Amino acid sequence: MPERNPNPAAPARAAATPRGEPMSELDRTGRQPKGHLVLRTLAMPRDTNPSGDIFGGWILAQMDVAGGLMASEISKGRTVTVSVEKMSFDKPVRVGDTICVHAELLRVGSSSMDIKLEVWARQLVDAYEAERQLVTEGVFRYVAVDENRRPRRVPDNPLFFTRD
Amino acid sequence: MPERNPNPAAPARAAATPRGEPMSELDRTGRQPKGHLVLRTLAMPRDTNPSGDIFGGWILAQMDVAGGLMASEISKGRTVTVSVEKMSFDKPVRVGDTICVHAELLRVGSSSMDIKLEVWARQLVDAYEAERQLVTEGVFRYVAVDENRRPRRVPDNPLFFTRD
Amino acid sequence: MPERNPNPAAPARAAATPRGEPMSELDRTGRQPKGHLVLRTLAMPRDTNPSGDIFGGWILAQMDVAGGLMASEISKGRTVTVSVEKMSFDKPVRVGDTICVHAELLRVGSSSMDIKLEVWARQLVDAYEAERQLVTEGVFRYVAVDENRRPRRVPDNPLFFTRD
Amino acid sequence: MPERNPNPAAPARAAATPRGEPMSELDRTGRQPKGHLVLRTLAMPRDTNPSGDIFGGWILAQMDVAGGLMASEISKGRTVTVSVEKMSFDKPVRVGDTICVHAELLRVGSSSMDIKLEVWARQLVDAYEAERQLVTEGVFRYVAVDENRRPRRVPDNPLFFTRD
Amino acid sequence: MPERNPNPAAPARAAATPRGEPMSELDRTGRQPKGHLVLRTLAMPRDTNPSGDIFGGWILAQMDVAGGLMASEISKGRTVTVSVEKMSFDKPVRVGDTICVHAELLRVGSSSMDIKLEVWARQLVDAYEAERQLVTEGVFRYVAVDENRRPRRVPDNPLFFTRD
Amino acid sequence: MPERNPNPAAPARAAATPRGEPMSELDRTGRQPKGHLVLRTLAMPRDTNPSGDIFGGWILAQMDVAGGLMASEISKGRTVTVSVEKMSFDKPVRVGDTICVHAELLRVGSSSMDIKLEVWARQLVDAYEAERQLVTEGVFRYVAVDENRRPRRVPDNPLFFTRD
Repeated sequence: MPERNPNPAAPARAAATPRGEPMSELDRTGRQPKGHLVLRTLAMPRDTNPSGDIFGGWILAQMDVAGGLMASEISKGRTVTVSVEKMSFDKPVRVGDTICVHAELLRVGSSSMDIKLEVWARQLVDAYEAERQLVTEGVFRYVAVDENRRPRRVPDNPLFFTRD
Repeated sequence: MPERNPNPAAPARAAATPRGEPMSELDRTGRQPKGHLVLRTLAMPRDTNPSGDIFGGWILAQMDVAGGLMASEISKGRTVTVSVEKMSFDKPVRVGDTICVHAELLRVGSSSMDIKLEVWARQLVDAYEAERQLVTEGVFRYVAVDENRRPRRVPDNPLFFTRD
Repeated sequence: MPERNPNPAAPARAAATPRGEPMSELDRTGRQPKGHLVLRTLAMPRDTNPSGDIFGGWILAQMDVAGGLMASEISKGRTVTVSVEKMSFDKPVRVGDTICVHAELLRVGSSSMDIKLEVWARQLVDAYEAERQLVTEGVFRYVAVDENRRPRRVPDNPLFFTRD
Repeated sequence: MPERNPNPAAPARAAATPRGEPMSELDRTGRQPKGHLVLRTLAMPRDTNPSGDIFGGWILAQMDVAGGLMASEISKGRTVTVSVEKMSFDKPVRVGDTICVHAELLRVGSSSMDIKLEVWARQLVDAYEAERQLVTEGVFRYVAVDENRRPRRVPDNPLFFTRD
Repeated sequence: MPERNPNPAAPARAAATPRGEPMSELDRTGRQPKGHLVLRTLAMPRDTNPSGDIFGGWILAQMDVAGGLMASEISKGRTVTVSVEKMSFDKPVRVGDTICVHAELLRVGSSSMDIKLEVWARQLVDAYEAERQLVTEGVFRYVAVDENRRPRRVPDNPLFFTRD
Repeated sequence: MPERNPNPAAPARAAATPRGEPMSELDRTGRQPKGHLVLRTLAMPRDTNPSGDIFGGWILAQMDVAGGLMASEISKGRTVTVSVEKMSFDKPVRVGDTICVHAELLRVGSSSMDIKLEVWARQLVDAYEAERQLVTEGVFRYVAVDENRRPRRVPDNPLFFTRD
């Protein structure tokens, strides 16, 4: 099989300079994801509902995982989900979609954290879709707890960087 | 509950300027992840093996999902996994670890793509771990196929940007 | 093994006349479930989070299944989840708990239905717990749709009885 | 969206007085479920067999969960499944069916309980089906055990009421 | 790492001549599995019940898969499970056990097949257990069906060999 | 239903003397599985990828389970997967295929074992396929470890017989 190495010296570097592609995407869609990317995965057939779309409960579960990940990073320890503020399902998620959950810290209380979660989907199977779509968004509240599930104080300087 | 909004005007912006934390991490660990972040998720109790660690098969499956996602983005369509080159399990993954799969395009053939995959883990439950660890790495080969599973040509300019 | 059939002639009938037990439960707990029982199941080890409690995402998924079941019965056809109004996680769910989801129709629009969902748990493994606890509650909104996902009208007389 | 609250003052009460609908169902089907409703859930695509129907093993598992739930409530503690008496699969279960497992206590030994289990299904997706169908039935035997798996005596007055 | 290839010329051959080990096992346990090995797998943590043993429903599901596999091989096509004759759970299955399901054709009707299923377990994690144990056994009845689920005739000479 | 017991006196014996059928299979396919059968199961709809074939990650997971089973039997205790040598996916696995994983011990080091794994599939649903196909093969390396995950010596005489 003849090979065409796109950039023999530094293929990774080449991939890191995407020559304007994201720019064209910016032009096409008005809205962009807000917050850090905390979860990225693939929607599989086992996650469908009887109508053939991805089951809403699976999406809620991914959002809860993502929010909990960010809350634990911010508070440097264990957290529990205490509430979901108004959230909406805007579009269906299809089998084979790439799912990205973006999280943004909205508010920090003494032990609680409000995290805005956006789920964006892009079709990748059989066809390639240039535009991603916001499929679900909502605000989840987490509370930092100790090992006995008692609330503990979130560290004073909750600046953070969701690490890869 | 008294609130302490860390930055009332622009909390998201504050979070985006992490004031050197990543730097200290750079100092601590010599090796950094290579490639794009294509999958990020949480290792759950249901994914354990009988010894209590995360099941190696689950990790292999996450790598295959991640490589397939990148291969489909590069080739703008359906792909199949054709081989796994030498890969190694360096450290166990524990329940509650955040799992990040990084992918780097190594080589492009007429219809095949070799993708280097690295799995990095960071402990987030009960304790917060500043350092992430490389737990598994390997190279997977994918072939772009049409709807009848016949190889199809990878587009000529496979520069790409793994989108959120 | 010597047998003690509690009521040789009609064991089922005997079980159907519980002699006031539920009454004593009514006395013990102030709050009772509201609405019809639409989902009842067992919380299993595979549904735990890394802290050992039942994963919040699993509970959200059960609520979405239950609300969708009731919405489909009311509207006599397919429905989609469109939003979750404020909901709260009041207590953790433990492995082995019996989970009951009660649903109450709050409001009917031309094609939408607001359904209040309460999740009640009772410990059944190793020990028997006389009192059940409200663990989660929330309001989910569903829209009746046709096979092309277009909203359709909910039948005019949405009185219904969640059948076994 | 214009709203039509069916009964502004007391929507839940309205739903609780179903005006004869169950009666018409009684007329239509000769056989009715026997025993208490102990498990109610939705048959999902992930539970199918290669022929597209719901996997028989999944149904057996739901029956075992349901019988175990009732046995634990009766004996107020841990139980183990010891045998399955003759059971039959009468009709296939389809994706999207609501599954109800009814349980009836047939016999109580010193530490064993024989529980008749009936699985009834009703189609709810895309179409609404007025009649439910008995899909599977069987008798499972459970034994009450202590924490070391040794048989323990079932309480003398095993009258009970499967609580919501 | 120094290597000790047990048999450089033909390691597979060496492994195929186990020098009497199975014999010593025959001496130790009176009862041996009957029938062909049709399913062999590992019991994982995700398959546990709230008491920590492997969930009885999972074992029933494995038996149904195994019986269905044999019935399809015998009848050379699709089959459905129609009944379970008396079966018993003799011992608990533990996480980490190797599970073998043996199947024996007991009886062939015009379209039905009665298959005896035995589940044998052997502990493999942390310790090595020389003896396997019969944990569950039962008789399942299958019916050969055509694509419309109508019974079809089992071929006249149902001699068969469960192929690897 | 009229019965045709193929061999009233000894049905199991009849089945055990398959009268040359395997021979004809030997003629048809040049390549036969190498090594012991260590895992045999059914590919289910829940294991599919978005293209409808069985997910490659599921196959990798089955191989890892099979190799781990054999490694634990050889070393009479706990093992961990340390690497995957070159492996290839030769053909897709379809829903309903019977999957057999054969394992052959290639090499034994002081604490490591190299195990060749072959996955063979045979179609069983709706149609019966006389020939099995090699779908995937690879070499996995395992290391015997003690309870603290430190390498331990593999017993000196690693001859073994993968028991049913």
